[in-house]
Amino acid sequence: MCVEYDGSEFHGWQRQPNGDTVQSALEHGLSIAARQPVAVTGAGRTDAGVHARGQVAHFDLNEVVDEHALLNSVNALTPWSVAVRSLQRTSDTFHARFDATGRRYGYRVSQVPVALDRKSRVVVPERVDFDRMNRAARGLIGTRNFESFCLTQSETTNRVCTISEAEWHAESREGDHTFRILADRFLHGMVRAIVGTLLEIGLEKRSESDLERIIAAQDRREAGPAAAAHGLILEEVYYANE
Amino acid sequence: MCVEYDGSEFHGWQRQPNGDTVQSALEHGLSIAARQPVAVTGAGRTDAGVHARGQVAHFDLNEVVDEHALLNSVNALTPWSVAVRSLQRTSDTFHARFDATGRRYGYRVSQVPVALDRKSRVVVPERVDFDRMNRAARGLIGTRNFESFCLTQSETTNRVCTISEAEWHAESREGDHTFRILADRFLHGMVRAIVGTLLEIGLEKRSESDLERIIAAQDRREAGPAAAAHGLILEEVYYANE
Repeated sequence: MCVEYDGSEFHGWQRQPNGDTVQSALEHGLSIAARQPVAVTGAGRTDAGVHARGQVAHFDLNEVVDEHALLNSVNALTPWSVAVRSLQRTSDTFHARFDATGRRYGYRVSQVPVALDRKSRVVVPERVDFDRMNRAARGLIGTRNFESFCLTQSETTNRVCTISEAEWHAESREGDHTFRILADRFLHGMVRAIVGTLLEIGLEKRSESDLERIIAAQDRREAGPAAAAHGLILEEVYYANE
Repeated sequence: MCVEYDGSEFHGWQRQPNGDTVQSALEHGLSIAARQPVAVTGAGRTDAGVHARGQVAHFDLNEVVDEHALLNSVNALTPWSVAVRSLQRTSDTFHARFDATGRRYGYRVSQVPVALDRKSRVVVPERVDFDRMNRAARGLIGTRNFESFCLTQSETTNRVCTISEAEWHAESREGDHTFRILADRFLHGMVRAIVGTLLEIGLEKRSESDLERIIAAQDRREAGPAAAAHGLILEEVYYANE
């Protein structure tokens, strides 16, 4: 299924003992709708406050159900802040996380005050040099060890990712920019650490060449602070057979 | 000034005895910030629930003030649901409404459930034929009397408008479409009546050729019902000297 959610109303994706999470809301709704206990696995476990427009998740059912009816039921049984946009049967072996070949995130920054969609844009009132950030961001492209942008509690030991796109785009409305980043995989906290570091470069608190030194250091303390969660959106997850 | 607002939190643009309106919120904030009574005139008076990303408004001050300081003050003195994006000095004769040469609105429809930005998108679960709507919408282009799409309480007697753009565009995310319409002026309730009529055509409740008959009738009862307010956004106002 393809899932959209407003991260400001959840304590992140992953099921946890306390607090509403997207995974729990979906499992609750699907279990009632399908009349059987349902466990949901997402392509990416977004942090508290992070949104998704194109999260992908899978679940297994013991019995065949009507997909259209299930889609309607689950949306009626989950809060407004989460929406299953589409739902389709896959092969028995499909795995939303392990089969994903790429993920695309967006990070929205406004240089002027915002009112509409203010839960998914971050306001940076100081003048940011987007060209400077884009020159620096080109250094992210490629297959590298991104340890310096990974939170230490991350469960995996492999810190190598391949970033194929990393660029700020001006939106049609003056003052708004979106950072688009595409990679085969992302480490925990990676996009926000990259955006936080780039913003320091855009604000001329760091030199353009700093990024190369930070990557080489393989030390999270060398990178900038994590950018605010609510600017980040998981836009799309890619699979080989699409 | 260029103003963005979340229409769901206001009873429309225009000042009124009861209820919060965008005009009142701006006048309140500006009067305190500029230390003098301020009356604000907008380019368009949006209805309750309608949003704006690019509303333009003007006001007169008795004394020269620092624009940058005024921008910061007014944003601090108004609710989060309204934001003055920019503010600039104009000639004494500039009038936000009378000098405007064009207005562009957007109307967002999603064919699938939504969670993020759900206050500014309308969900239509039935299959809509956007190509059919676009063929019909071409009949709107030109200088015509749009009486049939005007609420009767409208104050003006001139019902002639020139529409130069009227088309549905697919968004990057599957299932989402935006209707973009540009005209020199719009009558009261006009965009929502047009969208409501087009949706009936897209849902095959009306024939494609109905639009021509409706325009010729010059009777609001011939058109379809007004589409929901929260899908509508005043995107931009144009002036001759820009």
